[in-house]
Amino acid sequence: MMNADRIYNFNAGPAALPLPVLETIQESFLNFSGSGMSVTEISHRSKWFDDVINDAVARTKRLLNLDQRFHVLFVQGGASMQFCMVPMNLLGPGDTADYVNTGTWSTKAIKEAEIQGKSVHVVASSEDRNFAYIPESIAFNNEAIYAHITSNNTIKGTQWAHFPDTGGVPIVADMSSDIFSRPLDMEKFGLVYAGAQKNMGPAGVCMVIIRDDLLARTPASIPSMLRYTTYAEKNSMYNTPPCFAIYTVQLVLKWLEETIGGLDKMAAVNQHKAGLLYDYMDQSDFYRGTADKDSRSLMNITFRLPSEALEAAFVADALDNGLGGLKGHRSVGGCRASIYNPTPPAAVETLVDFMKAFEAKNG
Amino acid sequence: MMNADRIYNFNAGPAALPLPVLETIQESFLNFSGSGMSVTEISHRSKWFDDVINDAVARTKRLLNLDQRFHVLFVQGGASMQFCMVPMNLLGPGDTADYVNTGTWSTKAIKEAEIQGKSVHVVASSEDRNFAYIPESIAFNNEAIYAHITSNNTIKGTQWAHFPDTGGVPIVADMSSDIFSRPLDMEKFGLVYAGAQKNMGPAGVCMVIIRDDLLARTPASIPSMLRYTTYAEKNSMYNTPPCFAIYTVQLVLKWLEETIGGLDKMAAVNQHKAGLLYDYMDQSDFYRGTADKDSRSLMNITFRLPSEALEAAFVADALDNGLGGLKGHRSVGGCRASIYNPTPPAAVETLVDFMKAFEAKNG
Repeated sequence: MMNADRIYNFNAGPAALPLPVLETIQESFLNFSGSGMSVTEISHRSKWFDDVINDAVARTKRLLNLDQRFHVLFVQGGASMQFCMVPMNLLGPGDTADYVNTGTWSTKAIKEAEIQGKSVHVVASSEDRNFAYIPESIAFNNEAIYAHITSNNTIKGTQWAHFPDTGGVPIVADMSSDIFSRPLDMEKFGLVYAGAQKNMGPAGVCMVIIRDDLLARTPASIPSMLRYTTYAEKNSMYNTPPCFAIYTVQLVLKWLEETIGGLDKMAAVNQHKAGLLYDYMDQSDFYRGTADKDSRSLMNITFRLPSEALEAAFVADALDNGLGGLKGHRSVGGCRASIYNPTPPAAVETLVDFMKAFEAKNG
Repeated sequence: MMNADRIYNFNAGPAALPLPVLETIQESFLNFSGSGMSVTEISHRSKWFDDVINDAVARTKRLLNLDQRFHVLFVQGGASMQFCMVPMNLLGPGDTADYVNTGTWSTKAIKEAEIQGKSVHVVASSEDRNFAYIPESIAFNNEAIYAHITSNNTIKGTQWAHFPDTGGVPIVADMSSDIFSRPLDMEKFGLVYAGAQKNMGPAGVCMVIIRDDLLARTPASIPSMLRYTTYAEKNSMYNTPPCFAIYTVQLVLKWLEETIGGLDKMAAVNQHKAGLLYDYMDQSDFYRGTADKDSRSLMNITFRLPSEALEAAFVADALDNGLGGLKGHRSVGGCRASIYNPTPPAAVETLVDFMKAFEAKNG
């Protein structure tokens, strides 16, 4: 237990937020920035909110070293809405796209393209071994408009350690569960999207980073709210944006830049945190990781215990000890520790101590 | 000034929220309901969030006397997303819908249907007099799948006092700016939608109330996140919903039921508040309402002063006196006091006092 009130939160998303961010929101909740109003009450057309959204965009551009070709947009509907908006905006008649299937979310992205009658090639899949690995040596199609990947697989506990060579075809990546967790070379990417509720904020907003040449593909014949240009032309304020969620994202990015010190530092912390768990699991016969070693996620550590009964006892005992959210996704079972950016090393150290004690008692 | 910190907030949306609701959010922001987590950190698959969303739905059904045919959904993207989802879900090939054009938002709803190639009949419009009135004696088409209206026009300051006879064709209504402001007989309605950020919450969630027979029209060939059935079948949790916004809506509806005492009581308060402003304006030669008397909104009181210079001085002086958000929409100019459910009578009384003093000094 980190203190009398709060638990260590290993939820997969919505997930833990940095405590200083929560405290800032709480302190100013009745009077934002001297406005005499809550941040939930100020106009999105006010100077106050302009400062919020512009700062969030500027920090994103700095953290990811984005050049002038990239636009940072805030869209509602989560990553699931992007599963439909990406092919709707980027694929015209006769166009095709490549998709790599590495789990539940990739599978849904493919389905939402196919529902629209878009031409999709699944160029690689790790379904043969229950998505326990990231495919290698993939033959991408040169004529594809984009190549879609899921950079981190929350449910299966795998992550692309290096991004594939697509022969110049722009990568479109769902980075919902690892954006801002490590430095990113955007040179290969045409579009990156990420629901906020794992590494950068609360549920209710999705960040979309899109390059000029892909933005130019957007047809005028689709509804305004589904068109990327609508967001790019109006600084994500064609209509009222999800102000509170964007404000929280801004505070998390400020914390990432000013308290953590940027993505190199964040990546080192994340390597350290995941290392603590994997190193312990690797020398244990009691805990067994579910992902191939070279495909392991630094964000979602998935593991099994010797029996489902022990897994249930583990999750319950952990919660009694102030460690929450350790149950695996309902579709796969087992256990999972989600350790995104905001999860402090102390939380992981406490978890490893608990795992040792639980193994000593039940192993 | 209501106290040393807070102003009276007449913003059109995002708008004022009930102070007790803001205080509840603030107090529990680091530890929601004994979870040891912020409401922004709990899982949407948890018992805690189930209680939140189920309570919000139950209160909606009680407040509006909804029978079993109606489903209450929470969708992202605001009312603007509904401009596209309504025709996408309800109009198949060969189907037509009627639209009444009463201002900016109706115009946008019509446009988003037409972008999709849907067949739309604009059966009435008040554009001839700058949308200063609500049309009467409209000839609706019997074969229309639905008849779309905007129940309250935030920018033009008009509101439907009574809903039209459509000859049995279900009304689809954008009620973003007057939902829950008065009792509603849902018998005429097939679908009601409302962005939360005026009468019931913060920006970032839109309530959709849809009747079984219209829900059954939804085709399987449109993307999952744009299909009403996706939300109806999963209690609005097909993917991660905007948890914080839904939580705030729940608290506002609780306040509406338990502190105000329901929609009859709320309507009386709203009549009283609007009456204070209109009665004063009607005996003044200085302030001039922009809407026809029989079409006036109880939510958005739009008015002009003798000159634009005086209007600018009025807005600035008011803010100096702790009365914010009185500038009219940028598309029409003038002044506007938005007095939704959360605006307390004391705010309106203070505003009327200020208007008298300003008239005495400048009239």
